[in-house]
Amino acid sequence: MALKAQVLYDFVAEPGNNELTVREGEMLTVLNQNVGGGWAEAQNSRGQTGLVPEDYLKVGHDCSSQGGSGYISNTTEQWDSCGKTNTQQATVEDGDGEWDDWDDQSVSSYRSNSQGDEDSGAAGRSAHGSSMKIPRNKFPFSKGPNPEVFLLAKPPANSRDRLPVYMGEVGPVWLYPTSPLDCVIADPRKESKLYGLKSFIEYQIIPTTTNRPVNHRYKHFDWLYERLLEKFGSALPIPSLPDKQVTGRFEEDFIRMRMERLQAWMSRMCRHPVVSQSDVFQLFLTYKDEKEWKAGKRTAEKDETVGPIIFSLIEPDAAELDATQVEQRCEQYSQFTKLMDDGVRELLNVGHTHWKRCTGPLPKEYERIGRAFGNLSTVFNSSKYPGEETLTNALTTAGKTYEEIAQLIRQQPHNDLCFLLELNSDYKSLLGCFPEIISVHKAALEKVKEADRLVSTGKINNSDRKTMNYRISCMSYSLQAEMNHFHSNRIYDYNRVMQLFLEQQMVFYQQIADKLRAALSQFTTL
Amino acid sequence: MALKAQVLYDFVAEPGNNELTVREGEMLTVLNQNVGGGWAEAQNSRGQTGLVPEDYLKVGHDCSSQGGSGYISNTTEQWDSCGKTNTQQATVEDGDGEWDDWDDQSVSSYRSNSQGDEDSGAAGRSAHGSSMKIPRNKFPFSKGPNPEVFLLAKPPANSRDRLPVYMGEVGPVWLYPTSPLDCVIADPRKESKLYGLKSFIEYQIIPTTTNRPVNHRYKHFDWLYERLLEKFGSALPIPSLPDKQVTGRFEEDFIRMRMERLQAWMSRMCRHPVVSQSDVFQLFLTYKDEKEWKAGKRTAEKDETVGPIIFSLIEPDAAELDATQVEQRCEQYSQFTKLMDDGVRELLNVGHTHWKRCTGPLPKEYERIGRAFGNLSTVFNSSKYPGEETLTNALTTAGKTYEEIAQLIRQQPHNDLCFLLELNSDYKSLLGCFPEIISVHKAALEKVKEADRLVSTGKINNSDRKTMNYRISCMSYSLQAEMNHFHSNRIYDYNRVMQLFLEQQMVFYQQIADKLRAALSQFTTL
Repeated sequence: MALKAQVLYDFVAEPGNNELTVREGEMLTVLNQNVGGGWAEAQNSRGQTGLVPEDYLKVGHDCSSQGGSGYISNTTEQWDSCGKTNTQQATVEDGDGEWDDWDDQSVSSYRSNSQGDEDSGAAGRSAHGSSMKIPRNKFPFSKGPNPEVFLLAKPPANSRDRLPVYMGEVGPVWLYPTSPLDCVIADPRKESKLYGLKSFIEYQIIPTTTNRPVNHRYKHFDWLYERLLEKFGSALPIPSLPDKQVTGRFEEDFIRMRMERLQAWMSRMCRHPVVSQSDVFQLFLTYKDEKEWKAGKRTAEKDETVGPIIFSLIEPDAAELDATQVEQRCEQYSQFTKLMDDGVRELLNVGHTHWKRCTGPLPKEYERIGRAFGNLSTVFNSSKYPGEETLTNALTTAGKTYEEIAQLIRQQPHNDLCFLLELNSDYKSLLGCFPEIISVHKAALEKVKEADRLVSTGKINNSDRKTMNYRISCMSYSLQAEMNHFHSNRIYDYNRVMQLFLEQQMVFYQQIADKLRAALSQFTTL
Repeated sequence: MALKAQVLYDFVAEPGNNELTVREGEMLTVLNQNVGGGWAEAQNSRGQTGLVPEDYLKVGHDCSSQGGSGYISNTTEQWDSCGKTNTQQATVEDGDGEWDDWDDQSVSSYRSNSQGDEDSGAAGRSAHGSSMKIPRNKFPFSKGPNPEVFLLAKPPANSRDRLPVYMGEVGPVWLYPTSPLDCVIADPRKESKLYGLKSFIEYQIIPTTTNRPVNHRYKHFDWLYERLLEKFGSALPIPSLPDKQVTGRFEEDFIRMRMERLQAWMSRMCRHPVVSQSDVFQLFLTYKDEKEWKAGKRTAEKDETVGPIIFSLIEPDAAELDATQVEQRCEQYSQFTKLMDDGVRELLNVGHTHWKRCTGPLPKEYERIGRAFGNLSTVFNSSKYPGEETLTNALTTAGKTYEEIAQLIRQQPHNDLCFLLELNSDYKSLLGCFPEIISVHKAALEKVKEADRLVSTGKINNSDRKTMNYRISCMSYSLQAEMNHFHSNRIYDYNRVMQLFLEQQMVFYQQIADKLRAALSQFTTL
């Protein structure tokens, strides 16, 4: 008996990921309901098969008389009662290129945290399934609970959790740890279990603090990302993890590239004074054994100080700001991040165009020029005219020189453009987090502006209003501290990458000039 | 009464030349039969008007009862008798951008020389109207008179005309003049006549021998080219003149470019020991007054030692070669020139592609990169974060540097690629002459191989056979001397142009490296 499902939302397959592109309203045949990791295997009317997020499907039997329908995830028992639950493990691989074979318990528990509304299902899947897809509503909070909830929330009893903001030379700043944290990711190893059926890459991460390596798979990084996003995403930009990718995932280049990107992501997180000192981040870097890791994971997943509630932890060591001041700052940051986002995207666009040219048609053209010189040299050599050798030898050298220049051109983007693009991709990801942060901020501002009316209608009292004013001021200090952190990192990062880029470019052009000088010297002076 | 004409051959208009594309068999209305220069102005059935070569038209009245038809050029009297000759001067301009208003008498006289068959009309027009169109049969001789005619021709009585070939270090060589000839073309002036209705450019040509300037218009160069081609084209490669062009012909760039190309063409002709010492070439460079010029022109146009008859002038100072030796040499040169033609074309192809890239998308991409850096600098500058200036200033410099590099890239082909392409175009034109030279050679060889049969059938006598053997040996010495001249010039030319190209390329890349070094120095060291 074939299981039929209706598609609830459009879904675009990621190439090479064994996924199936589907349109809202389309009917599919479910081939495997229990692939794992939130995926179902399905076939469309054109006979194409692939994975679709199970939350995107509304499943029913095609024996429509039973009238059974609903989300796969919500209706397991119903299908159970039909004797139809398909529990066999599919042989397809999920988006992160590993088997989804761990802690299904804990996965569902952390996912259920964010299922505040229908959208969050999609959001949860999206963040989980692929970092490329922008969830429609990453934060159920911003649409969900009234800002009053976190504007009036009590600060936590445990002062250890508080997030102080100090006035530094540049304005409000986070409390930076005395010794900066960093880590080295190394030694990626292909591991397998279940007699080699399931294989994955395990990375060794060595924090500079303990110098003791811990092992993690990509999916653990993904879990960490989910935790950080959930806990800090309303206040701090948590950039996406490097893209998931299936094609050639055990090839050395891919592993090296992923490791480098995980390294860049981890270093950025380590540099963040709030993130790096959080329990979940410390757990990830310093757990002593499997037991501690599992216990820590459960604790992290049960953490209730997540989303905008985080603002109740902010403790500014500065005068309270009024709503107008807060709004001005917010507007300024909103504009800056928007403009920088445009700038970064433009640089990425032209950079990618340039990358394609430098690794494609341009070196081919130089090769053709080189070969044309070489061919002429061969032809000239066949003339049997005496005294031809000096010219033909020099022409051959010139030809080889242009073929070498072609190789330099082809290689060069890996020496310079690569780093410029990587950094700007990182910043694009960071900047992509700000609209959400700003919107949480603005929603709270609106609520604070309503405070007088709320008091007069008896919905809150004067003490509540004071708390709200204090809290919005805290939010603003949090945003200012974060922007100052962002600016200081930005200046450091762009200064570094521009120097690297220009230096490598200079070396590149100098190399070409030197090669040409050598080729020129082969010709006889006239 | 409208004049109707039927199109005899397809004709493709050259863009910007006020010409009309017509198809064989198409009916046209002749608007102006007497435009001059072998052109008629006509209108097609779609109402489009333009110039068509008059030799391509068969003209009749549309009062078909008269039955009058024929080539415009042949039937002037017929139309006269109808009282229909249109003698008004059209206001359109002909292909070489000047009025065809001189010596119609002499033009038709030299044209009639080459009207051996129907094809030659098209060929004559083609070479005259535009050097872009390859005539179907440039040399009526190779299809025309039996090779016996020139194989058996008597040497001229006047020993002054003879063309000696000596044995030099590299083999057979022409007699080179003791002091080499060259000339300088300068001071192009726009002249006009008929109250400004007709305008043209006059160039001053100063030969290094007399140091006395003579004035010539482009059409005079064209006349010289026709004479040299007719006289020497069976034995020596006579490269085409620079392309005719109407668009912007009085703009400075065009005038400069045409002058440079005429200069290159003249210098090449001056360097040729046979061409440079010919009467017609000397006349062109050294005529004293209008009278001497006109008389010399008439003499040149009446010259009967043209085409393969030229071989009767060759006087080799070396042992007679047999047909096998001649054939081997001929085969070798044929192969070499074919291979070099392929090589030159490939270099021109990739060179033109590279030219387009360097003057189009590549600098645009560098400009975009520059602007992207500049934009980021502007955005960063708006952050109001303290200590931003060093980075933003350096980023602005980097941006400007890339915009400057874009300009360098756009300009560079004019400094190097330009000369490489010009030289290879010259050689393409030279090499394009060899197939005809080789084919005259081969036709003569076939005839010489037939000699035994011709003697036995009584068509020639033994003395004729001896003359033929001697003449084919002379032809081979001529070809060898010419190839040695070609090789020596080729080595000189390519040596010179490759050095210029590589040197300019080196300077270009060095400039970029230096600019990048300066931009890099603006960043603070980390």
